[in-house]
Amino acid sequence: MTKTKIDVTLSKTKKEKPQSDQLEFGRVFTDHMFVMDYSPTKGWHDARIVPYEPISLSPASMVFHYGQTVFEGLKAYRTQDDKVLLFRPEKNMHRLNLSNERLCIPQIDGEFVIEALKQLVSIEKEWIPTAEGTSLYIRPFIIPTEYFLGVAPSNFYRFMIILSPVGSYYKEGIHPVKIFVENHYVRAVDGGTGKAKTGANYASSLKAQEEAAKKGYSQVLWLDGVEKKYIEEVGSMNIFFKISGEVVTPELNGSILEGVTRNSIIELLKSWDIPVSERKISMEEVYETYKKGKLEEVFGTGTAAVISPVGEFLYNEQKMVINDGLTGELSKKLYDTLSGIQRGTMQDPFNWVVDVN
Amino acid sequence: MTKTKIDVTLSKTKKEKPQSDQLEFGRVFTDHMFVMDYSPTKGWHDARIVPYEPISLSPASMVFHYGQTVFEGLKAYRTQDDKVLLFRPEKNMHRLNLSNERLCIPQIDGEFVIEALKQLVSIEKEWIPTAEGTSLYIRPFIIPTEYFLGVAPSNFYRFMIILSPVGSYYKEGIHPVKIFVENHYVRAVDGGTGKAKTGANYASSLKAQEEAAKKGYSQVLWLDGVEKKYIEEVGSMNIFFKISGEVVTPELNGSILEGVTRNSIIELLKSWDIPVSERKISMEEVYETYKKGKLEEVFGTGTAAVISPVGEFLYNEQKMVINDGLTGELSKKLYDTLSGIQRGTMQDPFNWVVDVN
Repeated sequence: MTKTKIDVTLSKTKKEKPQSDQLEFGRVFTDHMFVMDYSPTKGWHDARIVPYEPISLSPASMVFHYGQTVFEGLKAYRTQDDKVLLFRPEKNMHRLNLSNERLCIPQIDGEFVIEALKQLVSIEKEWIPTAEGTSLYIRPFIIPTEYFLGVAPSNFYRFMIILSPVGSYYKEGIHPVKIFVENHYVRAVDGGTGKAKTGANYASSLKAQEEAAKKGYSQVLWLDGVEKKYIEEVGSMNIFFKISGEVVTPELNGSILEGVTRNSIIELLKSWDIPVSERKISMEEVYETYKKGKLEEVFGTGTAAVISPVGEFLYNEQKMVINDGLTGELSKKLYDTLSGIQRGTMQDPFNWVVDVN
Repeated sequence: MTKTKIDVTLSKTKKEKPQSDQLEFGRVFTDHMFVMDYSPTKGWHDARIVPYEPISLSPASMVFHYGQTVFEGLKAYRTQDDKVLLFRPEKNMHRLNLSNERLCIPQIDGEFVIEALKQLVSIEKEWIPTAEGTSLYIRPFIIPTEYFLGVAPSNFYRFMIILSPVGSYYKEGIHPVKIFVENHYVRAVDGGTGKAKTGANYASSLKAQEEAAKKGYSQVLWLDGVEKKYIEEVGSMNIFFKISGEVVTPELNGSILEGVTRNSIIELLKSWDIPVSERKISMEEVYETYKKGKLEEVFGTGTAAVISPVGEFLYNEQKMVINDGLTGELSKKLYDTLSGIQRGTMQDPFNWVVDVN
């Protein structure tokens, strides 16, 4: 890994920034991006911040054919006193390297990339929205760039970071969603790529998502690929169940993504002395506890929404309405606390937040 | 689907063509390519043959993030009397639409694309090598082009066909390969994308391939993702076993690719009155027949190699040497016959071959 200075070329023109109240997710991008390239002889090299511009690749570039890609997602927040905060970026870099390992992509130097990211975010500081619930979404990703149609790991790669100002995930506050329990399509399986943040898992999820939407459900609950019995994830989030006062989340089994928010929620619950366990949990077990009136709250966790309460499941044609379709007390407290820490409005006893300056 | 005439822009310069005896697989591309675009309002439109040139896309283009891609592979052959032949291209178009359906990509008009393909191949006729074993590899593929980081099917796509002159797959004639039976990594699972020709299946296979290569094995035998017991594919080919005179291949179960060569081999065997069955077959069963001396031949089938004999398996640390590591009689006959039909040197009683003119 070449640790040379990052070459900076500033854009001559500045794009118009969108209004804070009109921000969507992932449609508008800032003026600059970070780029570095990999070759077998030079390793990762030519690290640079340049104007945001199109990528030009041969149609035979491997990225268009064999899906050997990885990515990450995290956010920068701008505080009332104008500081810029990142949330546990070292976790994203660690996971990026786990994904790289699974996809045969060379490891990156996480510390160096965090430095690059800080520099990029500082340059784009004016792009970080300040309104309640808004943030700057950060998308690091790696694509294979060799021009070759053989099925083999690419010899050349490009690493990029692009930035997008995003609005509040819940325009009218935190809002429970309706979930379809998927028992036909599979997102990932043991021995597959489920643990990696790679295009494959998202490509395979689209069809189920589309069919659930037709039935009026906004997300899909994924069961394990082997027995179609044990719960894995919800949409592209991790999932938690509050059952008789205890919080349960599926254990990391190789096909579940190791969510940064998932890990933070577990730490928060432990610090509050709320019992939390990571273990196998079947949909049948959830249904049984529901029938006994012991299923108190359900919520998904992820970078985009932080906490996404589940108001209803459709499971084998059975509707299960959770907590009267309302946001639970614990879900709300977790959302408020974690968002508060991320935005610098609440104390951070865990040292999770990183000041960009 | 707009069935307007295909707009043709010829290249002003011509690239130098490689020597027939120096051809590799998928490294050199011809002077032109076919392109058409999809939008929700226009459908597939702007069909055109243009000079081969780079694709320019925003870094936020969905193809770099969520793997929503599909592709096909087929070949054109140039005969001794200078005709250009395609092999069952309608099968590839049918499968492309099956892949599209699984990946939420709009259907293409197969007949129209075959016409476009014929026109493109005619323009590039001089690029089709004539030496024994050489051909023109054809790669149709579709990529999502919307600039959006949300996880959803793209609203915009690009369909392209690129062409690459390729050498004989076996430089020194048909040659048996050594195969590692994979019992950790999984290529695809029921409910996943195994049946589709999409990047996801290839991305997930790279790691196993890399580890097998380190052990001295050139390909991986994939077992089913649920029980890791039943045989699915070998490398990126379908697989056949000759056991006591009967030929057995895994049945199409949703996670196995519906190979065009696979289907053609089954038809050929039937026409020769050789018993052939498509059924579940476990690696344990193969091992038992091997121990009893009843495993006569094993071979993979695919567009690249046509027939690829298996000389050895490594299964749970046990070496299984098949037919003394030599190419079997039936494997050889199937290779000679199918290659002969494809190249126009043998009769084609099935009407598989399509003359481009």
